[in-house]
Amino acid sequence: MQPEGRSMRENILAAAVQLFSEYGYHAAPLRDIARLAGIQAASIYHHYPSKQALLVEIMEKHMQQLNSKLERILHEYHDPLDRLREAIANHIRLHTSNKAEFFIIDTELRALEGEHRTRIIAMRDTYDAMIQEILRDGMERGVFHPSDVKVTSYAIIALCTQVSSWFRPGGRLSVQQVIDIYYQMVSQGLVRVPEHKDEQKREESVRT
Amino acid sequence: MQPEGRSMRENILAAAVQLFSEYGYHAAPLRDIARLAGIQAASIYHHYPSKQALLVEIMEKHMQQLNSKLERILHEYHDPLDRLREAIANHIRLHTSNKAEFFIIDTELRALEGEHRTRIIAMRDTYDAMIQEILRDGMERGVFHPSDVKVTSYAIIALCTQVSSWFRPGGRLSVQQVIDIYYQMVSQGLVRVPEHKDEQKREESVRT
Repeated sequence: MQPEGRSMRENILAAAVQLFSEYGYHAAPLRDIARLAGIQAASIYHHYPSKQALLVEIMEKHMQQLNSKLERILHEYHDPLDRLREAIANHIRLHTSNKAEFFIIDTELRALEGEHRTRIIAMRDTYDAMIQEILRDGMERGVFHPSDVKVTSYAIIALCTQVSSWFRPGGRLSVQQVIDIYYQMVSQGLVRVPEHKDEQKREESVRT
Repeated sequence: MQPEGRSMRENILAAAVQLFSEYGYHAAPLRDIARLAGIQAASIYHHYPSKQALLVEIMEKHMQQLNSKLERILHEYHDPLDRLREAIANHIRLHTSNKAEFFIIDTELRALEGEHRTRIIAMRDTYDAMIQEILRDGMERGVFHPSDVKVTSYAIIALCTQVSSWFRPGGRLSVQQVIDIYYQMVSQGLVRVPEHKDEQKREESVRT
């Protein structure tokens, strides 16, 4: 009976993801989730004690994955550029393959209650702290410009998170192409001016 | 009577902003908005024909402001760096002074119906197109690295939009400091490697 039980849990979770992301957490009643999952409204409580439990499981599952993968990257890579590239790739890969789930994570922290809220916020803080460790280490080693570590970490996270809102699988760009464009932007910035200055310097030194 | 009428409209709009951003559009009933605005549920229809009309007005008002200010920047500034800096400043200033309104804009496009949806999406496309014009022009003039214009525009917009989710007025950083950090990051990127290379080259040429 267990495999069937697990599969129904998955069905319910998938239905919750769909309705939370389409209408918002508060506007998606448990009975609609049950109906979409193909189960009686009363039976849903055998699998999840409440709508809040569904929200928490969606958030925890995907944030845990995000965190544990980044943790592995920090152990495997030690060069700040490798770490930055892999962190960007990890964030974009998970956000493009679980678009609806991360949209819920990004918009429904407001709907978390009490101790759940504390736990999920702590997971997010752990993730932020790891990104900040990559930045701090890179700055200390002179690889990155000195800058505000916290604000820069928020910026990188925001950048890579938003990919999920416009990325379409099978569209013009592959996930890897998006990762490459974002890594180039975060690492090099937009402006070619420094090179120009050097070219000018070189030209001037040729002239003199 | 007109000033009072206008002020009640403003009260209703403020109540809608509060409830849409706290609970989501679909979970905020019109009667709760009326109660919060201090008006009878039935009387709200004298001011707004529907909840949808409230959502549309919130979105239109602030997106129009965002667009018209960026349009002015494009007319006033012609240097790509000035344009980029002013565009980032405009986006961050409006998103930090109207946090709840832009949270609604960012999360409730899904709740727009029919022709409203088309109009609001068109406003967003106009904004994207102006950011893309800044980037394309800067790339053509050799000031910016060549890159994917669309994806880069999404990245910059995402970056500056997200400021509204963590910025707290009166906190550690002023709006202007955040603008400076973001402009530095978008224009220069994180990595100091190119300078390093040049320094190495210079050192090498000194040696030879």
